[in-house]
Amino acid sequence: MSEHSPLDLAEGDPFGPHNLPYGVFSTADEPDRRRLGVRIGGHVLDAGAAAHALGSPYAALLDRPSLNPLLAAGRTAWRDVRRALTAWVTVPAHRADIEPLLHPLDAVTLHLPYEVADYVDFYASEHHATNVGRIFRPDGDALTPNWKHLPIGYHGRAGTVVVSGTDVVRPSGQRKAPTDAAPVFGPSVKLDIEAEVGFLVGTPSELGRPVALADFREHVFGLTLLNDWSARDVQAWEYVPLGPFLGKSFQTSVSAWVTPLEALDAARTAPPARDLPLLPYLDDAAEEEPGGFDLRISVEINGELVAEPPFSTMYWTAAQQLAHMTVNGASLRTGDLYGSGTVSGPEVNQRGSLLELTWNGRDAIELAGGKRTFLEDGDEVVLTAWAPGPDGTRVALGEVRGRIVPSA
Amino acid sequence: MSEHSPLDLAEGDPFGPHNLPYGVFSTADEPDRRRLGVRIGGHVLDAGAAAHALGSPYAALLDRPSLNPLLAAGRTAWRDVRRALTAWVTVPAHRADIEPLLHPLDAVTLHLPYEVADYVDFYASEHHATNVGRIFRPDGDALTPNWKHLPIGYHGRAGTVVVSGTDVVRPSGQRKAPTDAAPVFGPSVKLDIEAEVGFLVGTPSELGRPVALADFREHVFGLTLLNDWSARDVQAWEYVPLGPFLGKSFQTSVSAWVTPLEALDAARTAPPARDLPLLPYLDDAAEEEPGGFDLRISVEINGELVAEPPFSTMYWTAAQQLAHMTVNGASLRTGDLYGSGTVSGPEVNQRGSLLELTWNGRDAIELAGGKRTFLEDGDEVVLTAWAPGPDGTRVALGEVRGRIVPSA
Repeated sequence: MSEHSPLDLAEGDPFGPHNLPYGVFSTADEPDRRRLGVRIGGHVLDAGAAAHALGSPYAALLDRPSLNPLLAAGRTAWRDVRRALTAWVTVPAHRADIEPLLHPLDAVTLHLPYEVADYVDFYASEHHATNVGRIFRPDGDALTPNWKHLPIGYHGRAGTVVVSGTDVVRPSGQRKAPTDAAPVFGPSVKLDIEAEVGFLVGTPSELGRPVALADFREHVFGLTLLNDWSARDVQAWEYVPLGPFLGKSFQTSVSAWVTPLEALDAARTAPPARDLPLLPYLDDAAEEEPGGFDLRISVEINGELVAEPPFSTMYWTAAQQLAHMTVNGASLRTGDLYGSGTVSGPEVNQRGSLLELTWNGRDAIELAGGKRTFLEDGDEVVLTAWAPGPDGTRVALGEVRGRIVPSA
Repeated sequence: MSEHSPLDLAEGDPFGPHNLPYGVFSTADEPDRRRLGVRIGGHVLDAGAAAHALGSPYAALLDRPSLNPLLAAGRTAWRDVRRALTAWVTVPAHRADIEPLLHPLDAVTLHLPYEVADYVDFYASEHHATNVGRIFRPDGDALTPNWKHLPIGYHGRAGTVVVSGTDVVRPSGQRKAPTDAAPVFGPSVKLDIEAEVGFLVGTPSELGRPVALADFREHVFGLTLLNDWSARDVQAWEYVPLGPFLGKSFQTSVSAWVTPLEALDAARTAPPARDLPLLPYLDDAAEEEPGGFDLRISVEINGELVAEPPFSTMYWTAAQQLAHMTVNGASLRTGDLYGSGTVSGPEVNQRGSLLELTWNGRDAIELAGGKRTFLEDGDEVVLTAWAPGPDGTRVALGEVRGRIVPSA
């Protein structure tokens, strides 16, 4: 046994055996062979090769170029595979088999690990929605009348969900200031981020049959960080009356890693108290499992920390979002992805968008490289997050990184 | 040669050799074997079997269970395959080979013929948008300020696009009348139709690279009829500020047949005159090919004609919608489907939704089975359409049929 095995992690490594997120990678010598990988510390375990080496019955699910077959296999398989993986990376007897199947992270290319079916984005932070309402409707109520009765959401573009590290081409589009006579066309001048958490559906559901609150764990496989890049000027001009479209559809970036729900059991927390009674299909007061997740997100621009949004402050939970999304009978497919909506906490430095941090450009933030109201070409944004894990550990989510490049 | 060959069509058959729409079918003896079919009159030609029988180089594209490989093959392949099919069903020398490969329509099951990637729905009829504006904002301008500057659209749920003939389970959801103190939950009481035309994308495009107006034919393979079922009560309560969501996402029905663009060359027509100058990326004044389609749609409820919406009156064309949808750099995928939005003409009997036909329930329409404001359980809606074809012929689009069944 090597003294410096990749399996000997530093104490407290947030990608330890209690985490084990899933991704898809390729290596330089076989760039076209995508393989399922599991992150352990700074390495990726070739999950299919490990399954074959150890004679696992899960080889058929793990020796694949995409997470989708595992997603579709359902909760019992998810639990069993996780148990097997935990054993492979922790039981000394497996070490000789496993060590040769570990690739250093910096020696692999990470890909979008699943095929996205439908992509839905919610609007579930009361602080975010209140800030946006105050900015855009200063004379009206900050929240629309429906906001505390249902998790507001809309469908986004699944085909432009990309993996962390993909450059963001600055989108062009129409914009019109209220004082302009007519719209103008050009590259967005208000390119923004939205720090979000994404939930990935594994088990499908039947058309016409709603999914109950309590069935969240039967359908949702895991979590990912998500940056819902937003062109605020395009969005402002287009969005009445049918909602965001081109202001959002150019790109959505997700982490290369999907953290299984089970890794976040210790992060479960009660959502904020509800101000209004909820209709039964959304009422989670009697649910055994608290619906929130205590995730601490960090937003960095060009290496400087600009915000720390706390996911625990989200008014609507992921289980409520799933129940709402299907209450009309809409079916789920394997690979459906839904975003929480921008995560913003009550404090100024907890806001998950530049729109809020700069109050729509009124108050620039100071960075070492200069002031920013919205993103400039060359800026690189990185989202990271961690949550409490078992026994005082931390569970890190994979980062979401994106750099702005000039308009095509 | 049989005197009653299925290839000897009645004069003026709108599914003659000038039409040749594509679908996917299975037969009773092999229900799990889905096959590409081409409709000719009241029969379906097994396209893959025909390609093999005639030694066609297109067998690899046609002997498939889905249209997607043909969609992805691009415009040159689409044209060549269409030429080959035309020869197979018209040249007498092929008749002996082709006749045994024809299945009567009533002996086959038709399936959704393509895998939908992203689904987008537009709002492109000035008459429809004006009616909706007058109904819901009687004191304001009927059209929002952006309406004549850009084709308004939103993303819908791709996973609930179903083939004609699929029952529609009445959706449940929240609704709240303005006079109610709080929302109530239950089956929609304002279930509606939207008669639309859908455009199916074949050739994908690159992320970050807009598609120009003139490149419409390089990317769009063909047309289909589409019924965007809508729960008006759910929609009214949910849609501010992020647009329609559950009011639309429970189901969208499309024809089992995709009519290739080339079959509609004689139906091309100029769109209505534009009231406002358009930004260059949308300005089709100098386009060689007129952007409209002269499609005459019929809406029947329980066998009674209730409306005849004329597609030629649509303000925004499918080419403009494609250019707009990608101008921010959003990429296209094979299988992307976009709907025109409800088709309504200037006359009362040309309105493509019950919302407009009954003025949001104020004026019931008289049917033999009783008055209707919105759809009742058991109602069956059928959309059909035809367009001028070459040499005085008609080109029929495949019907879209759906029956309302009670809430689950």
